[in-house]
Amino acid sequence: MTGTSEPSAFEGFPGRHLLGIEGLSPLEIDYLLNLADDYVELNRRADKKNDILRGRTQINLFFESSTRTQSSFELAGKRLGADVMNMNLSASSINKGETLVDTAVTLNAMNPDLLVVRHGSSGAVNLLSQKVSCAVLNAGDGSHEHPTQALLDALTIRRAKGKLQGLRIAICGDIIHSRVARSNILLLQAMGATVNLVGPRTMLPKSFENLGVHCFHDMKSGLHECDIVMMLRIQNERMDGAYIPSVREYFHLYGLDYEKLKFAKEDALVMHPGPMNRGVEIDSILADDPERSLIAEQVEMGVAVRMAVLEALAKNLPNGSGNRGDA
Amino acid sequence: MTGTSEPSAFEGFPGRHLLGIEGLSPLEIDYLLNLADDYVELNRRADKKNDILRGRTQINLFFESSTRTQSSFELAGKRLGADVMNMNLSASSINKGETLVDTAVTLNAMNPDLLVVRHGSSGAVNLLSQKVSCAVLNAGDGSHEHPTQALLDALTIRRAKGKLQGLRIAICGDIIHSRVARSNILLLQAMGATVNLVGPRTMLPKSFENLGVHCFHDMKSGLHECDIVMMLRIQNERMDGAYIPSVREYFHLYGLDYEKLKFAKEDALVMHPGPMNRGVEIDSILADDPERSLIAEQVEMGVAVRMAVLEALAKNLPNGSGNRGDA
Amino acid sequence: MTGTSEPSAFEGFPGRHLLGIEGLSPLEIDYLLNLADDYVELNRRADKKNDILRGRTQINLFFESSTRTQSSFELAGKRLGADVMNMNLSASSINKGETLVDTAVTLNAMNPDLLVVRHGSSGAVNLLSQKVSCAVLNAGDGSHEHPTQALLDALTIRRAKGKLQGLRIAICGDIIHSRVARSNILLLQAMGATVNLVGPRTMLPKSFENLGVHCFHDMKSGLHECDIVMMLRIQNERMDGAYIPSVREYFHLYGLDYEKLKFAKEDALVMHPGPMNRGVEIDSILADDPERSLIAEQVEMGVAVRMAVLEALAKNLPNGSGNRGDA
Repeated sequence: MTGTSEPSAFEGFPGRHLLGIEGLSPLEIDYLLNLADDYVELNRRADKKNDILRGRTQINLFFESSTRTQSSFELAGKRLGADVMNMNLSASSINKGETLVDTAVTLNAMNPDLLVVRHGSSGAVNLLSQKVSCAVLNAGDGSHEHPTQALLDALTIRRAKGKLQGLRIAICGDIIHSRVARSNILLLQAMGATVNLVGPRTMLPKSFENLGVHCFHDMKSGLHECDIVMMLRIQNERMDGAYIPSVREYFHLYGLDYEKLKFAKEDALVMHPGPMNRGVEIDSILADDPERSLIAEQVEMGVAVRMAVLEALAKNLPNGSGNRGDA
Repeated sequence: MTGTSEPSAFEGFPGRHLLGIEGLSPLEIDYLLNLADDYVELNRRADKKNDILRGRTQINLFFESSTRTQSSFELAGKRLGADVMNMNLSASSINKGETLVDTAVTLNAMNPDLLVVRHGSSGAVNLLSQKVSCAVLNAGDGSHEHPTQALLDALTIRRAKGKLQGLRIAICGDIIHSRVARSNILLLQAMGATVNLVGPRTMLPKSFENLGVHCFHDMKSGLHECDIVMMLRIQNERMDGAYIPSVREYFHLYGLDYEKLKFAKEDALVMHPGPMNRGVEIDSILADDPERSLIAEQVEMGVAVRMAVLEALAKNLPNGSGNRGDA
Repeated sequence: MTGTSEPSAFEGFPGRHLLGIEGLSPLEIDYLLNLADDYVELNRRADKKNDILRGRTQINLFFESSTRTQSSFELAGKRLGADVMNMNLSASSINKGETLVDTAVTLNAMNPDLLVVRHGSSGAVNLLSQKVSCAVLNAGDGSHEHPTQALLDALTIRRAKGKLQGLRIAICGDIIHSRVARSNILLLQAMGATVNLVGPRTMLPKSFENLGVHCFHDMKSGLHECDIVMMLRIQNERMDGAYIPSVREYFHLYGLDYEKLKFAKEDALVMHPGPMNRGVEIDSILADDPERSLIAEQVEMGVAVRMAVLEALAKNLPNGSGNRGDA
């Protein structure tokens, strides 16, 4: 996605869309993280508004509902001055039998500049991006990618640890269909970090070893020497079924608590993309511990990262340079 | 609706509401189409925003859900700088037993300037307009009218053919309860076009001949000499029932494909208000053919037409001239 | 809530949150009502917009749906120039098992300035306010409080009668679980008015007498000498059940009509928080009588009161003085 050819003098983000982390160069990732860093401060001020996207139209097109991600994109766009419109298509148009491509063509005809899309099928956002003339941001597609989640996780880690290069990061739990895990693996490896995956065999098949990660089926060896322990959410439908014999047993083996955290480095920090199942994949007190948990910070970084991506893509639109650059 | 007395020196749109095409003069229609034409260019720029409605409040009150029409009005209002609020009342207040008039009086007390209303009952928007002091725009009421759809269709045709006067336009398919057909017939005839209606007897009763249109029950004679072929959406509930013996048979008899399009003029163009049932009322490849299909352009014209109507009605509000004209 | 120590020279509203009327001083209430009074005029102008909250983020977090209250807060925030985001959490995140506190912490991390919350449980808004760094406005929590409703009712009365001090106000009907009644009793008594409660024993238990109000079980004695008759909405689930033998009998005994209104003062005025059950707790013609009913005015005052509260709380935020006062 967003193919790039390693520009010698790097000026901004060269891609037209952000469909995934795959294909992004370290320079591009760094560019987006640096841009986002500036927005963290803006968002803490009384006046959070700038006019970089004034006059631009952003549409949040969510085929799967996600309060958290959609809100983050909505606030990001509004704070940049865009006109933001939410469209939740779980029901209405879909019921009328309109195809994904029809929806894309229809929306495109309304002249949006930025289209944020979440869809339950891997590749659907990619397909849609080929039918529109605006910039497309993937807000999660099936088990494929969730690039802004990986970017916000990276920004959170970089602010906490001062770097990404050389860190060892454990991603634990329900990895098999996780677009969050996939985008994080791609980004962290691109930036020179080492990734350990930890989980039961049913949630972490051997095939993952092809990604260049280290796979473990117990927390003790998986967390060894880790700087960051990133827990993933267990899908509800997996509890008390074939995947997990019981919630209690799962927490005993794979749930992160202070005891298991000792397997990692002494100053290891804890992350979770939310929403959490407290007492299932993570201990409730640890999750709220400001000394060890970065979970709330991840949410804050989410808005900043989305502002950075929106700004970067708007600059590359054919009809102008972000603001008032008329065709 | 919006009674007018043919002003000799025509300055703007004289009506307080836009409840239907019925009663609009050709001068009024031309005024709105010309205003919309300017917005087409604005919407293609990076900065799509003007401040004509800054400080104005627009409420989109939808008793029937319609992603497409509501989105179009929402973008139109936001691009004009209005504060736009969506209210979808399929469920909430209605469940509490509040009447339509109570809803109208309540909303009116919040001092909106522009109220965009869709309702399942013919006449409901008209009734509501009598209870409020703001401008009311009909976004579709039962089988009565859908005036902005007719205006956007007219703008699309005028841009493609350079005129409306003297054209012959076929409206085909599920006409019997169609507010789209009704508003289009009224507008096109007012502007000097000739309208052919084409459809099976169950969907096009003889009574329509009273409207001054020409009725046909086969595509070959109905499309003869036509400049535009406008297909209507078949309602899902009519498929495979009393109205349509089978989808396949319907497409064979009335579905528009390249073969049937040859019955019309050589340079005839195809329209559809969307959402389409591909392979039912229209061939999928023809629908996407940029040489023959105006379907995406219709959506684009929709936003521009709604901006024009919002601007025109705001100018006539008792408390000011669109922007900053305080009472 | 919002503890205050009776400032001798009163400058603005001193609280950080607005969780209830309980604890507000008459000076604070007066301050908010005076501020709201100015917004009534603003809202009637063509340009309803000011920039007091420009750059601020307002989130409307509704765990119970309420078209009317949410709309009123949404318009209030938008007219003050805030970026407003609606979150309706009846379904989505709650289904994922996220706790109220997780939701609060997550939202807080997005750096909102103003959080408007409605929740079905008494005390939930209070709990949430302890977990966030922004200002929290209670938009109704269980059977506890609904402070902006009481403020808008007070503003309506004060504009109609020129004062609150010394008036006698009857609150009638389904009082037992009513947060509207509770907040109104607290406010009206604080401002020197006398409150009569009127209703059947099942809806008005003796325990209410502890609040310092006068309880009556018939309209004739309850309305005697009253300046204002405020009717409450009967909950649907109470009709034709244990609480109300029949709708007809209820209207006969407690429904307000012109006959029963004669029990009150000659110039008594009628109020209802809406939505109304016409013909159940109030006669339909009386409800719409501009000489006697203040019901539409209550809705108008609602927007003005919410603008006043939003402005007052924004001034007290740690990071600035409402607009552009950066940290």
